[in-house]
Amino acid sequence: MKNKIVIALGGNALGNNPIEQYEAVAFTAISIVDLVEKGNKVMIVHGNGPQVGMISLAFEKAKEIEKNVPSMPLSLSGSMSQGYIGLQLQQAIKNELTKRKIKRNIVTLITQTKVDINDPSFKKPTKPIGSFYSELEIKKIAKEKNWQVGEDSGRGWRRMVPSPKPIDIYEKEIILELLEKDNIVIAGGGGGIPTIENKGVLQSIDAVIDKDLTAQKIAELVEADMFMILTAEDGIWKNFGKSDAIFLKEPSIKYLEELIDANEFPEGSMKPKVEAIINFINNSKINSKACITSLKLAGKALKNEAGSWVKK
Amino acid sequence: MKNKIVIALGGNALGNNPIEQYEAVAFTAISIVDLVEKGNKVMIVHGNGPQVGMISLAFEKAKEIEKNVPSMPLSLSGSMSQGYIGLQLQQAIKNELTKRKIKRNIVTLITQTKVDINDPSFKKPTKPIGSFYSELEIKKIAKEKNWQVGEDSGRGWRRMVPSPKPIDIYEKEIILELLEKDNIVIAGGGGGIPTIENKGVLQSIDAVIDKDLTAQKIAELVEADMFMILTAEDGIWKNFGKSDAIFLKEPSIKYLEELIDANEFPEGSMKPKVEAIINFINNSKINSKACITSLKLAGKALKNEAGSWVKK
Repeated sequence: MKNKIVIALGGNALGNNPIEQYEAVAFTAISIVDLVEKGNKVMIVHGNGPQVGMISLAFEKAKEIEKNVPSMPLSLSGSMSQGYIGLQLQQAIKNELTKRKIKRNIVTLITQTKVDINDPSFKKPTKPIGSFYSELEIKKIAKEKNWQVGEDSGRGWRRMVPSPKPIDIYEKEIILELLEKDNIVIAGGGGGIPTIENKGVLQSIDAVIDKDLTAQKIAELVEADMFMILTAEDGIWKNFGKSDAIFLKEPSIKYLEELIDANEFPEGSMKPKVEAIINFINNSKINSKACITSLKLAGKALKNEAGSWVKK
Repeated sequence: MKNKIVIALGGNALGNNPIEQYEAVAFTAISIVDLVEKGNKVMIVHGNGPQVGMISLAFEKAKEIEKNVPSMPLSLSGSMSQGYIGLQLQQAIKNELTKRKIKRNIVTLITQTKVDINDPSFKKPTKPIGSFYSELEIKKIAKEKNWQVGEDSGRGWRRMVPSPKPIDIYEKEIILELLEKDNIVIAGGGGGIPTIENKGVLQSIDAVIDKDLTAQKIAELVEADMFMILTAEDGIWKNFGKSDAIFLKEPSIKYLEELIDANEFPEGSMKPKVEAIINFINNSKINSKACITSLKLAGKALKNEAGSWVKK
C-alpha cells in the first residue's frame, strides 16, 4: 500500500528558537520517516507562526538602534522562515533516513501561494501579528508604515494583516515532478508566500495564509491519496476536554459539518483543520482519505490504530 | 545549440536591502532569461555576503534590547538568506519569463554543501564577517560566544570564520532531476550551508564557503556544458586598470596559471573566480567551456561577442 501523502505540520513540531527547534525537528523526523519507511511518497507543509514572528521582531527591534538594518516586509520575513525551518527539517529527516539506511532525497522549495486581491480578507484584515503596543503608539506607527491595526482580545493593540484563501501554488509542477521521483518535498512553509498576480506579474504581499488550507490546496493539486494534519491533539473530539468527550474515529463529512455549524470547534484551531480535510475529500478523487492526529501517532494512524479519519 | 549552464551570480546582481534587491533582481532576470530563451537549461548559484550580514546584524542588535530575540547561528542566518534572495530572484525571473511568453518553471532549493572538518581553514579562520569592534570589546564577546576573532586590514576587530572548500552538495540529485526536466533551479545560495558529516549525521556549522567554488562544484556534479561567472567586470584583464591593460578573450589555462603565480589577480576577488573556471575545465568532460563576464554581457557572451572564455 504505497500512498502519496501530504502532511500539514503544526507549530508544535518545531521549536520557538534555534536550540528548541533543533531538538523538536529531530523528534518530528522520526514520525515523518515512519511514513516514508512504508514506501509512501511524502511531502510536508509546515507552519511558521513563532518563527516568522521572531524574525520580524528581530528586524523591528534592531532598526530602533541600528540604521543599517532595513525595514523587512512580512512576505520577506516569511521567505526567511521557509529557509530557516526548511534547512533544519530537511537535515533532521535526512539524518533519520540515514540512520535507518533508507535512500531517499529531501529538499525544501521556496514556495509562492497565489491569493486573490479581491479576497474579502483584504478589506478587513483580522489576523494579529507581531508585538503588542498601546493604542497611541500603534496609531502613530500605523500612519508611518501604512499598517492596519486592531485590538487583540483585550491583550493590547497589534498589527492586523489579511488572511486570504490560497487559490494556487506557483511551484506545483515542480512539487509533483519531485514527488513522482520519490523525493521528500518540504514546500508551502507557513502557508506559502502570499502572492498576487497583476497582468501576469507576480508580487509578494503582506498577509498570512492558513497553512492547513495551503496544505489542502497542495494535496489536491498533487492528487494526494492521503492528507494528514499532524497537530497537538490525537484527533477530533466532540465536547473536547469535558467529562462527556467523545473521540470521533471515523466521522462522516455530514456529521462534521453539523458540528461546525453548532460551533463545536474553536476558530483558528481545530475548526480550520476540520474544514481543510472536508474540503480535500470533497474536491479530490475517489478513495482519498484524510486524517487529523498527533505527530506522535502518525505511524499508528497509518495502520488505522489512531487518529480521526475521514473518507468520501 | 542547447547547453546546460551553471551561472555564478555575484553580489552586485542583488541589492543591499529589500527595495534595492527588488530592483536589482528585475534587471538580473533579463540577463538570465536571455540565456533561457535560447533553450538552454539554466541553474543559478548566487552570493549572499551583504544579505547574510544584514540578517546577522539584525539578530545581533535586536538581542541587545529584546530578550525574546534568540542568538542566531551564522548557518541559520545563511538559510534565511537563501530563502530571502531565492524568493525575489525566482519571482523576478518568472515575471520576465511570462513577459516573453516562455513556459518554464523555476524554484529555489535550500542547499547544504559538504565540507571537511579537517579542512585547514578550520584551524585558521580567515574570513571576516559581521560588525567591527574594539579589541577589548570583541575579546569579551569572543569568550562568551566561543568566537575566533582577528584584526581586519586596519579597520578594526571582527569575528573570523573558516572558509572551507566545498566537497559535495547534498541536494545534487534533486538539482539534476529538475534540470533534466527543463526547470530553472536556484541552489547553493551563498555557497550553500556549510555542513559536516559525522558518522552519517549532518550538522550545519558556522563558516563561509566561496560561492564561485560551490558553483564550480555544482557545475561538475551536474555535468554542465558551460560554467559562467557573472560579475562586475566584463572579463579577465591583465594589468587591470593600468594604461597597458589587456583583455584576455580566450586565455589558455596554462597562461592563466602563470598569471595566478605572478599574483596578477586580487585575492578574494578575481583570483578565486579564475581558479574556479580552471578547476571546472580541468575536472570536467571534453567540450565544456567556462566564461567570466558581466551580468549585462551574459547574452552577448553566449554569442561569443563578449567575455573571457576558457576551454580545454
